[in-house]
Amino acid sequence: MKNISRRKFLRSSAIIAATGALVTPNVACKRLFVNTKTSGSKTLSLKFSHMMHELRHTFTISGFSRDQTAAVLAEISYDGYTGYGEGGLPPYMTGQTVESSTFFLNKIDLSQFSSPFELEDILTYVDSVDSGHSCSKSAIDIALHDLIGKLLDKPLYQLWGYNREKAPDTSFTIGIDKEEVVRQKTEEAAPYNLIKVKLGVDEKTDKMLVNTIRSVTDKPIVVDANQGWKDKNFALEMINWLNERNVLLIEQPMPKNVFDEMAWVTERSPLPTFADESCQRLADVAKLHNVFSGINIKLIKCTGLREANKMIATADALGMKLMIGCTTESSCAISAAAQISPKMYFADLDGNLLISNDPFTGMKIVDGKITLNDKPGIGISRI
Amino acid sequence: MKNISRRKFLRSSAIIAATGALVTPNVACKRLFVNTKTSGSKTLSLKFSHMMHELRHTFTISGFSRDQTAAVLAEISYDGYTGYGEGGLPPYMTGQTVESSTFFLNKIDLSQFSSPFELEDILTYVDSVDSGHSCSKSAIDIALHDLIGKLLDKPLYQLWGYNREKAPDTSFTIGIDKEEVVRQKTEEAAPYNLIKVKLGVDEKTDKMLVNTIRSVTDKPIVVDANQGWKDKNFALEMINWLNERNVLLIEQPMPKNVFDEMAWVTERSPLPTFADESCQRLADVAKLHNVFSGINIKLIKCTGLREANKMIATADALGMKLMIGCTTESSCAISAAAQISPKMYFADLDGNLLISNDPFTGMKIVDGKITLNDKPGIGISRI
Repeated sequence: MKNISRRKFLRSSAIIAATGALVTPNVACKRLFVNTKTSGSKTLSLKFSHMMHELRHTFTISGFSRDQTAAVLAEISYDGYTGYGEGGLPPYMTGQTVESSTFFLNKIDLSQFSSPFELEDILTYVDSVDSGHSCSKSAIDIALHDLIGKLLDKPLYQLWGYNREKAPDTSFTIGIDKEEVVRQKTEEAAPYNLIKVKLGVDEKTDKMLVNTIRSVTDKPIVVDANQGWKDKNFALEMINWLNERNVLLIEQPMPKNVFDEMAWVTERSPLPTFADESCQRLADVAKLHNVFSGINIKLIKCTGLREANKMIATADALGMKLMIGCTTESSCAISAAAQISPKMYFADLDGNLLISNDPFTGMKIVDGKITLNDKPGIGISRI
Repeated sequence: MKNISRRKFLRSSAIIAATGALVTPNVACKRLFVNTKTSGSKTLSLKFSHMMHELRHTFTISGFSRDQTAAVLAEISYDGYTGYGEGGLPPYMTGQTVESSTFFLNKIDLSQFSSPFELEDILTYVDSVDSGHSCSKSAIDIALHDLIGKLLDKPLYQLWGYNREKAPDTSFTIGIDKEEVVRQKTEEAAPYNLIKVKLGVDEKTDKMLVNTIRSVTDKPIVVDANQGWKDKNFALEMINWLNERNVLLIEQPMPKNVFDEMAWVTERSPLPTFADESCQRLADVAKLHNVFSGINIKLIKCTGLREANKMIATADALGMKLMIGCTTESSCAISAAAQISPKMYFADLDGNLLISNDPFTGMKIVDGKITLNDKPGIGISRI
């Protein structure tokens, strides 16, 4: 499912649009579908649509390139308030598409619940409707949380007892590219205190990428190997090489199902190791204890903020470190993820900075640090 | 510390009262100390006092008897609202006393925090002031949560997304006593759907207790062996014997630090096993995976509701069952524990029913089931 092409994606979209769903293009986001289940002031009502995020730069990671990313937008209304939630649909990561999220969200009926505060029941129901579909589930979860925050007139980080002053720096991500592009992107990253680089192609390219960044700046680097190193000895060698170049941590050095070798690497690694592809949902966290030093939480993997908070508690219980990541998403999903960032060792929440048509404003990066506002819920406004 | 006598307890109290603390006796609760740290509408202000709960029946478990139990009451005010929190101080369980909780709470200064919503920071600070003191820490945690619920005008179970309809039955606890008293108490337990019995004395007494209950009723029984069975073969034999007598689960059959033998018992047990003394705080949960089937959360062990919710998440992640227990406490601590009861397999929240001078009303037992009200916070009122 990793190599769904842009052409196939556009073909799928066209098929669905042609079968009669409401198409509402607008400047900021291209809406393909709207599905209103119910209406009424004290009834939970779900609408969903899709956005097509335009990338500022063609993005390459080990595998393929893209210059657009789709995302699903959920809007849940109750008692005169509307909560927004987004789930990015990056083709390389989950295999979820506009087509599959439409299929899933058309099955969701929230009118059976009498209040958005019945979160445990609502999200257990949503999760039970079908396996997978974590991106669409996350959009619903975020919209419900945003709605609850608005009903209570409080930002989510406050409702969860987190201190926004403790939000970490975010990194700026540099994809796999030619030397000159990497140099240019590193210069663009000037406002950030951390650089994240995607490695895992081959030794020569990996070292070129790091050396090129180092020719521009000495800022700390976070490395994401995206499962790229297949041999434990090579992985450890690379980590030792990186450790001499002001690298802070190494994410998913080896293939996601390689546990014994990964535990061997973590035991010997001078840098903390983080699970990304190996860690999808709550039930994975305990299995990764002593395999990785920490986990990368992404809302589109774990079905949203409620499960993310449970993963935080479990990682705390196990003494594992935490980071939060994202995909190419608007300020809606990014501001949602930012609400739990005060609990993170490090954040990788630059997805909204990579797109040119963000329909929302929300959390800001100020001097490289995630900066949460006072607005209720996830703290976003439509542009 | 297990056998602190009532005389020693009263002597300690007298010493402290004599050293100048404010004594304000009243009908419902005997207040020994009041300590107001700060005042001002947008300042967090902590007061604490102690209550002496009078038991309806002299209570015996393996070890000793008592007819009174002390508890600490925290009152935290902010912006015109006051939250209440209680931590029972049962001498056999924690070694914490009126004296030690006074010592600890006098060190707490909440005026350094600008809002009760900074829960993570406040409770991390409170936990860091001194090790131990979990009962006093829980009183603060509950008072802060009650305050937040009042500020938001929502019951805590709603803020956490729990459905109060899913709150479980509670049991009525029968202590170790003579046959005729056990028979009488079993008859008193008529309004409850579950009976909890404390075993762990010796085989003859244990079987007498269960047989006496069975001579009155066929209702399901929950057994708490309170670490009483020292040999794994005997523990398993007892569990098998109990399994033929409509027993639902077995709590802490063996000594708290006996892990390998306990895992052996759990593997062979026809009944789920629950850790009580073996499970104090969040960090214990993962260690008990595959040792017990589940954990008994008590707020006075785990420092309160915030850590309890993290333990719930971790137990969910590990596929472990949950129950919630209490000690002899008023409707304040019991109503707080009831807020998380919808996530529990079973609850043992009868502490307030065992005392004759409860200064609060809150959650009710209706047809044996925990019944949460619509009031904000922990849902209590002073009588």
